[in-house]
Amino acid sequence: MPKKLFVLGGDGICGWPTALHLSQLGHEVVIVDDLSRRRIDAEMGARSLTPIASIDVRLSTWRELSGKAIRFEFLDLAQDYDRFVRLLVRERPDAIVHLAEQRSAPYSMRGQVTKRYTVDNNVRGTHNLLVALVEADLDCHVVHLGTMGGYGHHGASFEIPEGYLKIQITEEGAGLWETDVLFPTRPGSVYHTTASIDQILFQYYADNDGLRITDLHQGIVWGTQTRETRLHPGLVNRFDYEGEYGTVLNRFLVQAALGFPLSVHGTGGQTRAFIHIEDTVRCIEFAIADPPRSGERVKVLNQAAQTLRIRDLAQLVSLVTGAKISFLPSPRNEPAENDLRVSDAAFLALGLDPILLTGSLLEETLQISRRYADRVEASQIEARSPWSPPRRAAGNRNGRSA
Amino acid sequence: MPKKLFVLGGDGICGWPTALHLSQLGHEVVIVDDLSRRRIDAEMGARSLTPIASIDVRLSTWRELSGKAIRFEFLDLAQDYDRFVRLLVRERPDAIVHLAEQRSAPYSMRGQVTKRYTVDNNVRGTHNLLVALVEADLDCHVVHLGTMGGYGHHGASFEIPEGYLKIQITEEGAGLWETDVLFPTRPGSVYHTTASIDQILFQYYADNDGLRITDLHQGIVWGTQTRETRLHPGLVNRFDYEGEYGTVLNRFLVQAALGFPLSVHGTGGQTRAFIHIEDTVRCIEFAIADPPRSGERVKVLNQAAQTLRIRDLAQLVSLVTGAKISFLPSPRNEPAENDLRVSDAAFLALGLDPILLTGSLLEETLQISRRYADRVEASQIEARSPWSPPRRAAGNRNGRSA
Repeated sequence: MPKKLFVLGGDGICGWPTALHLSQLGHEVVIVDDLSRRRIDAEMGARSLTPIASIDVRLSTWRELSGKAIRFEFLDLAQDYDRFVRLLVRERPDAIVHLAEQRSAPYSMRGQVTKRYTVDNNVRGTHNLLVALVEADLDCHVVHLGTMGGYGHHGASFEIPEGYLKIQITEEGAGLWETDVLFPTRPGSVYHTTASIDQILFQYYADNDGLRITDLHQGIVWGTQTRETRLHPGLVNRFDYEGEYGTVLNRFLVQAALGFPLSVHGTGGQTRAFIHIEDTVRCIEFAIADPPRSGERVKVLNQAAQTLRIRDLAQLVSLVTGAKISFLPSPRNEPAENDLRVSDAAFLALGLDPILLTGSLLEETLQISRRYADRVEASQIEARSPWSPPRRAAGNRNGRSA
Repeated sequence: MPKKLFVLGGDGICGWPTALHLSQLGHEVVIVDDLSRRRIDAEMGARSLTPIASIDVRLSTWRELSGKAIRFEFLDLAQDYDRFVRLLVRERPDAIVHLAEQRSAPYSMRGQVTKRYTVDNNVRGTHNLLVALVEADLDCHVVHLGTMGGYGHHGASFEIPEGYLKIQITEEGAGLWETDVLFPTRPGSVYHTTASIDQILFQYYADNDGLRITDLHQGIVWGTQTRETRLHPGLVNRFDYEGEYGTVLNRFLVQAALGFPLSVHGTGGQTRAFIHIEDTVRCIEFAIADPPRSGERVKVLNQAAQTLRIRDLAQLVSLVTGAKISFLPSPRNEPAENDLRVSDAAFLALGLDPILLTGSLLEETLQISRRYADRVEASQIEARSPWSPPRRAAGNRNGRSA
């Protein structure tokens, strides 16, 4: 059944293909975005490798191609609370996909301005959304795109569950207390800290106000195009390759396209979860179709297709492209090597047939990298955000497994 | 050894006696405050039962009486980030006592404006403080006054530990993973949610930047005067009796002084932790003297002298004053009855000899209630903040113990 959907952050790298896909499925889609990702590009002197169209051209292209209208509301969720409430009351969406957050960990670590922007924007935006739903008295399903990174990199060897951890507490004479708790996070950047904060806010508003919320803990996205963005150059998706917003695989592919070595930070023993952008939009489709009941706790789903070590990823790209691999110091405070196993039972049960990384699937992204290689600003490929000021030692990040 | 200390929120109910006490001990004290508590009084049409002096009169009175100067900086930590950094760089305090938060749960629940103010003010203020210390590269101990309420009211029967919970995770074939995690919170109001968020921020900045942080999880404060505030009417502490900021014991004493019945919400079976204001300032003194080492995790101390059921507290006041007790519906979403046992080993080890509630100790506060009874606005005694809009049922707050 067609629904009315808001996509907050619908101009961004996951938001735009999500908005298109939901529109293609027949839903009525309203994009709400402050275009801050474009502003940040301007601020960093960076740009998407792909020449993305303005939001107006994107929407008119889609209308001409598909006959479907996506509407656009220029609005900063963190700042324009009253206008957002009026929009809710007027439109009464059935579900809201919330991607209106600053999502780059390295950008969040650039300095005090971006640390504070990330916390102010993400926490305030998420909280404004929840308060607005209560004020508008709207029983509307919120689907939030969060991050697997919020779980932290414990060095733990057990499988990461979907959001909740079952714990048992025993005390002499007091019997057993058994409960599910939100997975105890140990975020590794200011951005990931805001993801931990989001889960506290979601828990509270589901508990106290009965809001229905799904929190998607997503792995690192790879790939660029989806079925819909591929239809026309005016719909092309962002491709971030620079050190702040570019995720690791895209960076490798750009380095390969330019004949540069693939830069692996630390030993490359960091294990991360990955998902293809096409699966991102499908998972969001599935999540919208399967909302929690009112009164139910926040539904947390792990949105990842596989886990890989960074050095294995580099090997794969090297194999396909012939690029060399170079090892650089890691700017992050985290264990050099970690295992990661992730439960993804929920989306498999919902019917997801995940796209796995293979050499042949890299081809499209590699072609994009080669096609737009002359748009690359080589000096921007490496991340420059330091995780700690030089003087300070982070004393207790590592080695908590027994 | 005398230190230079900032007291953020030093004009408030705990901040003012803390600033005086630390000054009395010989420390150099700078109060940083935006006087927002007085603004909120004006906004609510409320006032302290005690006629508190302006901050200028407070400080000049103290200077005349003690010969010690406390300086005052009018500054909003959540808004005036750059000025705060300059102040840090200029003054280079040894420790910062952080009480600059909106601390009333009922006020935080009044409506969308106060929900959003509480989150914006508290989260942003705390984060600004932490970022500013990193930017100023200052190895300065932060002592934060948080709340026992952040632990949530689980209905759990085990003793609440000091901040961390030891958990063990076993998985077939994967061995045992044992770790201490931040106590998994289940906050019951927007204010308490900000306390949960604070602990995430503290964990991150201690981990990543080596900041030295003590987080005091305080029970409900009772009493009004401390040794220093008692010295002169110009130093008198706030006494909040209205429904939003007045804590339960003070409200009972005002009701008794006016010949009203003591209003108990629900069954009065809620168990809460309590501490006398005189112990609050001593605990802060102890915490400053015993900072964590750099690289050490956040030190969490439970700051409470005893736990009591609300109906037992009402009984005690009734016994002393002859007041009747009346039972009203509870506005909160929480279990009607809960047990609460709290570890307070750390402060006992530091030498605290806690002041326990007895009839005779109520005398001073009762006298204040009687003396200023003509300043009471009777219509303001009861809390009016609803926890949920009437339509929404909170489905899953209760009964998680097994």
